[in-house]
Amino acid sequence: MISKNQIKFVRQLEQKKYRKAEGLFVAEGPKVVGDLLRAGFKTHTIFATSEWQSQGLPFQEVSDEELRRVSFLQHPQKVLALFHIPSIPVPSVSNLSLALDDVQDPGNLGTIIRIADWFGIDTIYCSENTADAWSPKVVQATMGSIARVNIVYTNLKELIRKVQVPVYGTLLDGQDIYTQELSKEGLIVMGNEGNGISAEIRQMINRKLLIPQFHEGPESLNVAIATAITCSEFRRRYPL
Amino acid sequence: MISKNQIKFVRQLEQKKYRKAEGLFVAEGPKVVGDLLRAGFKTHTIFATSEWQSQGLPFQEVSDEELRRVSFLQHPQKVLALFHIPSIPVPSVSNLSLALDDVQDPGNLGTIIRIADWFGIDTIYCSENTADAWSPKVVQATMGSIARVNIVYTNLKELIRKVQVPVYGTLLDGQDIYTQELSKEGLIVMGNEGNGISAEIRQMINRKLLIPQFHEGPESLNVAIATAITCSEFRRRYPL
Repeated sequence: MISKNQIKFVRQLEQKKYRKAEGLFVAEGPKVVGDLLRAGFKTHTIFATSEWQSQGLPFQEVSDEELRRVSFLQHPQKVLALFHIPSIPVPSVSNLSLALDDVQDPGNLGTIIRIADWFGIDTIYCSENTADAWSPKVVQATMGSIARVNIVYTNLKELIRKVQVPVYGTLLDGQDIYTQELSKEGLIVMGNEGNGISAEIRQMINRKLLIPQFHEGPESLNVAIATAITCSEFRRRYPL
Repeated sequence: MISKNQIKFVRQLEQKKYRKAEGLFVAEGPKVVGDLLRAGFKTHTIFATSEWQSQGLPFQEVSDEELRRVSFLQHPQKVLALFHIPSIPVPSVSNLSLALDDVQDPGNLGTIIRIADWFGIDTIYCSENTADAWSPKVVQATMGSIARVNIVYTNLKELIRKVQVPVYGTLLDGQDIYTQELSKEGLIVMGNEGNGISAEIRQMINRKLLIPQFHEGPESLNVAIATAITCSEFRRRYPL
């Protein structure tokens, strides 16, 4: 059973202000919920049908119809859990990390988190105006990768001012990423979908990269695609 | 002015059966429409507001409100055009090409077309069950790249049986793409979002590639991301 108030409580977590006020986010499906549990994320409430393999965890049993009413998915998947948003201190930049300067699209953000996970990048620093990683859309788009990558919202300018590693960014006046010298450690800045990296941060980038274009026509690459190509080239040269 | 019948006619083109029956597809916005016009695509009708820069082309003037009623976009952009779907004979595989084995998501297909355009890949061969590239969603997701890449729907098995170039595919039992020998010419097969490359086509791949995973956890990369990384690595070694 799930009460009307509980449904209302969960549905409100679609909005950032409620997530922030409650310190909670929603995750759905055995894969994503399982990845978060395995990574040690703390649960607030788990709603699940009798089909969910709880492995001994306490949960509130709901019917398929009740799950459908509370779910954010078109096809609800046995379990919906509320987790506490982790509050970790902003880690200082080491290894290879990503910084997102106002990435707006939840799908892009989710895909970027998945890419970071694949390439073993521990931390993504997000500008305060980057889409919220704890929205239901982003959490699901990460396919569980959000459990394995630190997501930190911070003032990027202040962060970059203090970093000890080279700061990279893909820019139109950059140098060919395939031949340019890359370092094992670094902070890779990716920009907004429409405007790229903001003017102020652009000036703080000390190694400008260019993903070469192989013929006339296209004006840009999608930010998640550019992130994938950039991370791939770093890891090709410096495997973990 | 736009008539009710015209609105109905355009809106029906959201469905594949009507696109097929009429041989038409919808494109919107100055950028995408402009790219298609420049590439020589033949128009059927252009609906535009007085703000659209027609550069002398005849068009049917509509109000903002009329454009909003006919548009597939949340924010209509001055122009919506109906173009004839090009019918080109299936080109034989040469250079570097992509083959999509039942890619289902319109967003992924649009992104893959954009990637092909960026990397100067002329032709994408699609299995008959791949999402339709001429749907409004895909056309817009390509950001105009659909004007510059040949999209050919064909029987992939028959195509692969006849090709003279190496056939590549990313598979779990493949060899590290960063160190594996690659050729300048080839057909790169990308699989379905859920199931990857189908069993029959998997057996026809003679060079299996693996995008190495750098730590435990993630199960897969999104198909568009894997396409980007693969194309990037080919072009790094063999720039056009």
